[in-house]
Amino acid sequence: MRTVDWDYQNQSLLLIDQRLLPGELRVAAYSDYHEVINAIQEMVVRGAPAIGVTAAFALALAAYRSSASHTTEMLRNLSIAGDELIAARPTAVNLKWAVARVLAKAHEAPGDLDQLRKLVLEEALRMADEDVAINQRMARHAAELIADGDTIIHHCNTGALAAVDWGTALGAIRMAHQQGKRIHVLVDETRPRLQGVRLTAWELQQYGISFDIIPDNAAGYYLSSGQAHKVFFGADRVAANGDVANKIGTYMLALAAQDNQVPVYCVAPTSTIDLSTAMGTLIPIEERPPNEVLNIQVDGKSVAPTGCTARNPAFDITPNRLISAIVTEKGVVYPPYPENLARNIGLIES
Amino acid sequence: MRTVDWDYQNQSLLLIDQRLLPGELRVAAYSDYHEVINAIQEMVVRGAPAIGVTAAFALALAAYRSSASHTTEMLRNLSIAGDELIAARPTAVNLKWAVARVLAKAHEAPGDLDQLRKLVLEEALRMADEDVAINQRMARHAAELIADGDTIIHHCNTGALAAVDWGTALGAIRMAHQQGKRIHVLVDETRPRLQGVRLTAWELQQYGISFDIIPDNAAGYYLSSGQAHKVFFGADRVAANGDVANKIGTYMLALAAQDNQVPVYCVAPTSTIDLSTAMGTLIPIEERPPNEVLNIQVDGKSVAPTGCTARNPAFDITPNRLISAIVTEKGVVYPPYPENLARNIGLIES
Repeated sequence: MRTVDWDYQNQSLLLIDQRLLPGELRVAAYSDYHEVINAIQEMVVRGAPAIGVTAAFALALAAYRSSASHTTEMLRNLSIAGDELIAARPTAVNLKWAVARVLAKAHEAPGDLDQLRKLVLEEALRMADEDVAINQRMARHAAELIADGDTIIHHCNTGALAAVDWGTALGAIRMAHQQGKRIHVLVDETRPRLQGVRLTAWELQQYGISFDIIPDNAAGYYLSSGQAHKVFFGADRVAANGDVANKIGTYMLALAAQDNQVPVYCVAPTSTIDLSTAMGTLIPIEERPPNEVLNIQVDGKSVAPTGCTARNPAFDITPNRLISAIVTEKGVVYPPYPENLARNIGLIES
Repeated sequence: MRTVDWDYQNQSLLLIDQRLLPGELRVAAYSDYHEVINAIQEMVVRGAPAIGVTAAFALALAAYRSSASHTTEMLRNLSIAGDELIAARPTAVNLKWAVARVLAKAHEAPGDLDQLRKLVLEEALRMADEDVAINQRMARHAAELIADGDTIIHHCNTGALAAVDWGTALGAIRMAHQQGKRIHVLVDETRPRLQGVRLTAWELQQYGISFDIIPDNAAGYYLSSGQAHKVFFGADRVAANGDVANKIGTYMLALAAQDNQVPVYCVAPTSTIDLSTAMGTLIPIEERPPNEVLNIQVDGKSVAPTGCTARNPAFDITPNRLISAIVTEKGVVYPPYPENLARNIGLIES
């Protein structure tokens, strides 16, 4: 089952509703792209690769539902829908990447409206298939960085649920596990949305990979006591200089790893690398509702005193100096990143 | 109301049950020192200064309940009770400090059993009163490090609830607030026990100090974006070289502060400084039950998949190189700590 899929019969987009996991595995169907924008904002679907492909399918929905009477009007509709999709979540660049790719394809279309619709959908379907293949290639490259016996700290969720299938950083761990390497994962619970506990733990159970959940703030203890050998995470956007925007907490984790000479690996497809953003400080950081921090309960009782306020930045920037390597589907990129990332993106895959 | 107090009428120890806050303010009474050990382990009472004085009162309970027929037997009973109390939580040195002080006083006692009992109780009462006075002196020293307009990141709870009254790091913030300085506190929620949300937020509301709760892993974002000017926390044990054992997450917070040239202040009474422990790596780190990590709920539903395991180290070590100053009741101690901490402890207060 794919995290993001297309229902040919009903011409609708299917998303695993990740808000309900691990308690319930439910697939939601979408036929209106406005609903998809809402689903992205509410994190029914999340993870940079997954929301990129979701946006591509959302454009297909926009094309099929459009009442445009000629292609110029349709292209204008798609452009507006694309802008709305990009605005849904500002940090991950995959939304922008996916919209740009689909719109470029749409502009190649001949005059026929039905052909244009078909072309947009075909491009989305191609992107979905490519995402799986790209993730698996990336995982094979990244798995070479994992040794038999490694204990790996992993942040957020970067598995099959963060992509169409397979995943990025967790995909690498899964690949290494399939290769017979014995791995133990320390799963950052990843406050406030708890993607580590909810999603990564759930995936690891299914893959049969050994793990323990830890509070995010305990990573430093395991790193400084020599109990963790590698740090792996994904990315929501990689700037041209190799600075990484990723789930809140990544920066503190990378710092603690560096302070203890533990390698830090970011696994992200080239679609997440944004050469038009020179450095991390230029990446917009989304702030999400305070309630995501305050809604925590223990023993059925709310913990936060009534009337509290909270801040909830969803991402932070990990400077390139803290990152040992960035792994894309085209290989392992080492510093200096400004040169080597651009070279990696330009590589033609064999 | 004191966090730790003595009920003269019933000769019992009174503790605010901090597990019930902020929902309910309930005082529990203890007349058996074994129950007090359990209360310390279950974190009815927590915070290094608070559990130190609690242990002193527990020895008074042991003395009053003892059926010893002569002082040698009584002293042996007290010595056994003291060892059990010290073992209740291994990281905070205040348990050891308090037990040693009470036992030393008991050994000064003349032959009479009742006098010995009275002497033990009087010492515990003196320690409780001293704790409040010490915290207030410490707060005045530490408040000088706080400037008007500061935004301060604070970890765990170090307020009145962590001591007999007033508090350590939060006591400094409270003092600065009383001095008219405008302060905003970013309250680390402090996973997994959530002392920040439960206790620090509750205290700050009562003091009328402005704050926002943040996930622990978001501190790095506020530090790197220049939105936080100081970091304050307490300590469970300070080694002779200035390494600080404190609530899990302190190390990663201090690292992130240092990476952004933000000063890091540890506020702890001299009773928390353990000159017999040369360095932080020699301090035992308590690991608490996994359920404290896994029992988190959102919208009334458990988050962790069934069958998950977790690790739950309760403390970590922040190396002295990350700490700008350690503030005791005797003043502000700057590096080099090995010399200056010993000198500070030796100071006679005016």
